[in-house]
Amino acid sequence: MTTPDLERRVNSRLDELYERHVDEHEDEVVEYYDPEAPEEEKESFGVSLVSTDGVAFETGDHDLPFPIQSISKAFVYGMALEDCGREAVLEKVGVEPSGEAFNSIEFDDKARRPHNPMVNAGALATTSLVLHGDEPEKCMERILAALRRYAANDSLHVDEELLAAQFEDTDRNRAIAYLMRSQGMIEGDVEAVLELYLRQCSVFATTHDLGMMAATLANGGVNPETNVRALEGRYVRDVLSVLYTCGMYDAAGQWAYEIGIPAKSGVSGGIMAIVPGKLGIAVYSPGLDEYGNSVRGVKVCEEISDRLGLHVFANESEDILLRAVG
Amino acid sequence: MTTPDLERRVNSRLDELYERHVDEHEDEVVEYYDPEAPEEEKESFGVSLVSTDGVAFETGDHDLPFPIQSISKAFVYGMALEDCGREAVLEKVGVEPSGEAFNSIEFDDKARRPHNPMVNAGALATTSLVLHGDEPEKCMERILAALRRYAANDSLHVDEELLAAQFEDTDRNRAIAYLMRSQGMIEGDVEAVLELYLRQCSVFATTHDLGMMAATLANGGVNPETNVRALEGRYVRDVLSVLYTCGMYDAAGQWAYEIGIPAKSGVSGGIMAIVPGKLGIAVYSPGLDEYGNSVRGVKVCEEISDRLGLHVFANESEDILLRAVG
Amino acid sequence: MTTPDLERRVNSRLDELYERHVDEHEDEVVEYYDPEAPEEEKESFGVSLVSTDGVAFETGDHDLPFPIQSISKAFVYGMALEDCGREAVLEKVGVEPSGEAFNSIEFDDKARRPHNPMVNAGALATTSLVLHGDEPEKCMERILAALRRYAANDSLHVDEELLAAQFEDTDRNRAIAYLMRSQGMIEGDVEAVLELYLRQCSVFATTHDLGMMAATLANGGVNPETNVRALEGRYVRDVLSVLYTCGMYDAAGQWAYEIGIPAKSGVSGGIMAIVPGKLGIAVYSPGLDEYGNSVRGVKVCEEISDRLGLHVFANESEDILLRAVG
Amino acid sequence: MTTPDLERRVNSRLDELYERHVDEHEDEVVEYYDPEAPEEEKESFGVSLVSTDGVAFETGDHDLPFPIQSISKAFVYGMALEDCGREAVLEKVGVEPSGEAFNSIEFDDKARRPHNPMVNAGALATTSLVLHGDEPEKCMERILAALRRYAANDSLHVDEELLAAQFEDTDRNRAIAYLMRSQGMIEGDVEAVLELYLRQCSVFATTHDLGMMAATLANGGVNPETNVRALEGRYVRDVLSVLYTCGMYDAAGQWAYEIGIPAKSGVSGGIMAIVPGKLGIAVYSPGLDEYGNSVRGVKVCEEISDRLGLHVFANESEDILLRAVG
Repeated sequence: MTTPDLERRVNSRLDELYERHVDEHEDEVVEYYDPEAPEEEKESFGVSLVSTDGVAFETGDHDLPFPIQSISKAFVYGMALEDCGREAVLEKVGVEPSGEAFNSIEFDDKARRPHNPMVNAGALATTSLVLHGDEPEKCMERILAALRRYAANDSLHVDEELLAAQFEDTDRNRAIAYLMRSQGMIEGDVEAVLELYLRQCSVFATTHDLGMMAATLANGGVNPETNVRALEGRYVRDVLSVLYTCGMYDAAGQWAYEIGIPAKSGVSGGIMAIVPGKLGIAVYSPGLDEYGNSVRGVKVCEEISDRLGLHVFANESEDILLRAVG
Repeated sequence: MTTPDLERRVNSRLDELYERHVDEHEDEVVEYYDPEAPEEEKESFGVSLVSTDGVAFETGDHDLPFPIQSISKAFVYGMALEDCGREAVLEKVGVEPSGEAFNSIEFDDKARRPHNPMVNAGALATTSLVLHGDEPEKCMERILAALRRYAANDSLHVDEELLAAQFEDTDRNRAIAYLMRSQGMIEGDVEAVLELYLRQCSVFATTHDLGMMAATLANGGVNPETNVRALEGRYVRDVLSVLYTCGMYDAAGQWAYEIGIPAKSGVSGGIMAIVPGKLGIAVYSPGLDEYGNSVRGVKVCEEISDRLGLHVFANESEDILLRAVG
Repeated sequence: MTTPDLERRVNSRLDELYERHVDEHEDEVVEYYDPEAPEEEKESFGVSLVSTDGVAFETGDHDLPFPIQSISKAFVYGMALEDCGREAVLEKVGVEPSGEAFNSIEFDDKARRPHNPMVNAGALATTSLVLHGDEPEKCMERILAALRRYAANDSLHVDEELLAAQFEDTDRNRAIAYLMRSQGMIEGDVEAVLELYLRQCSVFATTHDLGMMAATLANGGVNPETNVRALEGRYVRDVLSVLYTCGMYDAAGQWAYEIGIPAKSGVSGGIMAIVPGKLGIAVYSPGLDEYGNSVRGVKVCEEISDRLGLHVFANESEDILLRAVG
Repeated sequence: MTTPDLERRVNSRLDELYERHVDEHEDEVVEYYDPEAPEEEKESFGVSLVSTDGVAFETGDHDLPFPIQSISKAFVYGMALEDCGREAVLEKVGVEPSGEAFNSIEFDDKARRPHNPMVNAGALATTSLVLHGDEPEKCMERILAALRRYAANDSLHVDEELLAAQFEDTDRNRAIAYLMRSQGMIEGDVEAVLELYLRQCSVFATTHDLGMMAATLANGGVNPETNVRALEGRYVRDVLSVLYTCGMYDAAGQWAYEIGIPAKSGVSGGIMAIVPGKLGIAVYSPGLDEYGNSVRGVKVCEEISDRLGLHVFANESEDILLRAVG
């Protein structure tokens, strides 16, 4: 429970955090999600913290929608677990970090499956499990329904313009998918899997939405605002485990070492992080580092984790909201 | 604190756990550490649980010494952090799980360093940081002193016979070490680094010792029996982080997913696992699975973690010692 | 020039060669092109030798049509050279043997192109150069016209049934093609390139046809029967060079070492070999070795090369037709 | 047979060739063998042509000794064939071009041996076959005796200063050798193999010597000046085959395509090329291209091959000496 006074103090410190990071990241940005976007758009920056009480603290462009891209992989993986059960999912998609880039065409040759559900190959295999021969558009309705439960926001939807653009530029994913089918790792209509995958990537959300979705995972799968369950409790641990070891592309190990909380980033500049039992965190800023993670996003999460002692192997567990923001 | 009654009940359940596992693993064993050892020796099986109060519960061959092999990497990594600081260590050895086998000759080409300190390449680099141009035998005294503090056992020592045998059969490690020097990843006398590495691997310990060492890590770096510090508190988190993502060879991701506690295994059949703030676990059984991890060791740890809800992303935290054993 | 007496002697020895090989290859066959074909079909065996005078000596199933599959790569590579010139072709497809399997997804990363036109990746790139944005079916007419000139046989055609079947089972080639487009190695309509590629693979020919085609290459690009040119003289050397170093999959080096003449094999069990200035050789037998080359085909070529001293680095050059057959 | 008049004309054209190439290669040089050598030394440039009659035509620094380095691999491979027979050698070293760099640590995993005797791994395996447990220094006498027969020059010797320097900088070769021993590809004393390998690389020769050695190979293994046999005739074909497909590092395929004669280059800037039955060619110039081949060396060989139509798959065979030089 938070009090008006606490809220005021948290908000004030959150604004200070925003100020500390808004100006500083220029030289570490290696690329932008959309290099041709107007300068102002590239400089967007929003942060949302949502407690497992359902209270949100936010700053900057927290109501600016952006495509969730790979962050969708976390939620679709949860759906695959619900649809097929843990064992059947593990048979088709491993949980081993690979040290490879997100778009690698390497597989786990020992187990004959993609390394994990967070590299594109594994995400395509996961999506094919959820599609299960259905129509992509129809199946997307089911995914959207889940995402809306996570976010407590019924307006989440697929951006058709982005979807069309992604279809034009997905040769590498298409290649990965056909390669997997040629090796018996996925079955059925590859183009349908690809379509569903691009649809899930083309959902737009704000950091407010994402923070709420993260808080739902932090809250054992139940949205803390609506008290509606978005993911069966027994699969929350599985999703968090995979995010912890594989969520941040080939910087996942470094993230686990330094920040130490489950998280997932997307190429559009979003990061969602989960502090189990406590907090959902979402940051959006489109400047990316060499691993494809948001530069400001990584820094904000690092600062919050440090101040709060959130690292899963940290010794102390102390007051969260206050320290989170300074 | 434990009472005589609790201890009796724990011990009784631990014996039941021993019985459940002693007969069952035959068909999953892919190889033995020493295939030519007498049958009896191959069937050795010991378990020790040590609480952060310093109380040990043990069953089977818990007082049988065996070579700690790769488990030593965890402790030497801690020493390197103390000797050089986190930043200098990270420059030479990454923290990224690689999805490669422990004896892989692949490196992190982006960062020009071994992927992590738990693959042999990274362990050799770590050892070279600790050696730092010193004499191997002299430096080993320093490592032994640390291991003895962890274990509260002054009799830990290098087995010279094993050392001699390992020297005869270390061509692959030698190759890795020269390859790293040829690429500027390590410097100085490669043979001295190799000697120190083989020395640290040739230390013998019992599951009692290892359980105590694990409890020391669980206890923030201070041995719970002697209250002597074995590792600076600020580096405990780093060691645990790396064990969590990289400790179980190329099954590390699966371990993190299913068992969810930091652990390290050695090729001789030992596994050490750490439940921060609560418990050290050690198992010894020489039959290995396809990843080089002890078959019984993995099963015992899985059962204990399940019963106790020890997974770092599990929802509940309940009474430990009782549930641990059945 | 051959005389009736010489012809009789050659034919008689060729029959002996057939007898020597027809019964002996069982234990070296690793797989059959079509494992479910009737036994009799799997045991098909034909040999044709065609001199650069245009005289054919043949034995066994020399008039049995079979799909030329990868052997088509040699002729389409020649067309690409004619269409685009050597320099433009080299920019898109290398000439470096790769030591990789024919269906490898590895590329020459230094030069950013497929290693050579005989691995599938390079063949797809070659075909895309010949297609050049045209309709696949129309472009196939052009390819067929060339093949007919090589063979002096106007009935060569695409087998539509095989084509349909191959379309169903070409995921790996499709993956390779999309991967190449994603890396800018090919452009345009990937499905059209794929269709043309499968069409060229689905042409049926007999060993008589193939022997004639090989003799055309041996004869500087001019069919020795019709005296019609099938390939510009200046590109014959390029085609032969690439066949010599890359024509026999990942056994190409061994073939160059032991047999030492330019050759190309196809997965259906055909082999075509060229002795410049002297002879075209074609063998058909569907039992394949571990590299995907016809077991009997390799042996027959080896025997003929040995007897005739045909190896390009052999010391002697002696009477061909007689020794070729025993 | 050459006449005084022919010799005069050849020499005059050879000087013109020297002039054409001496000034032009600057921008294609990627590195020098010894970047710190005096400028004059880096600009050394010598060419020798030796006919299978034993007549030498030379220009530039043809009497300047330089280390033969990897060119030694060709001769030691011949010795291994003589010592062990073709079959035993093939069991330990393949003949498959690999597309890998000369110092690659990749092996032929299917056949469990180095790809070919021209990459360092294969050369070390070859050298170990010749050493066969002997003393390196003693065995080197045997190798030197052979090299002297090839060159008809009894003063060829190991440069001890270079040898000492190479010992200091051979970590990668040492790593490759230990890796091979760890996989059972070589046996015995790795340091002795390494010493012998560095010794054979540290022999100094002039382009005159190398041209003579190449002419010996072109002449079926018999030195054309002394008529002394340097290599058994039946193995000449094997050496030439391997040079043709693997002699020019990972530009071997391109060389076979464009120049089309067996050749071997060394990192010090030497190239030796063999025109069977006709000619030995040697060039020395220390500026290297991206593949590690002498820039001027490649160009001179290309020009000579073009003018003479020496490509093994060229159509014509015409007067050599005259066209070779202009």
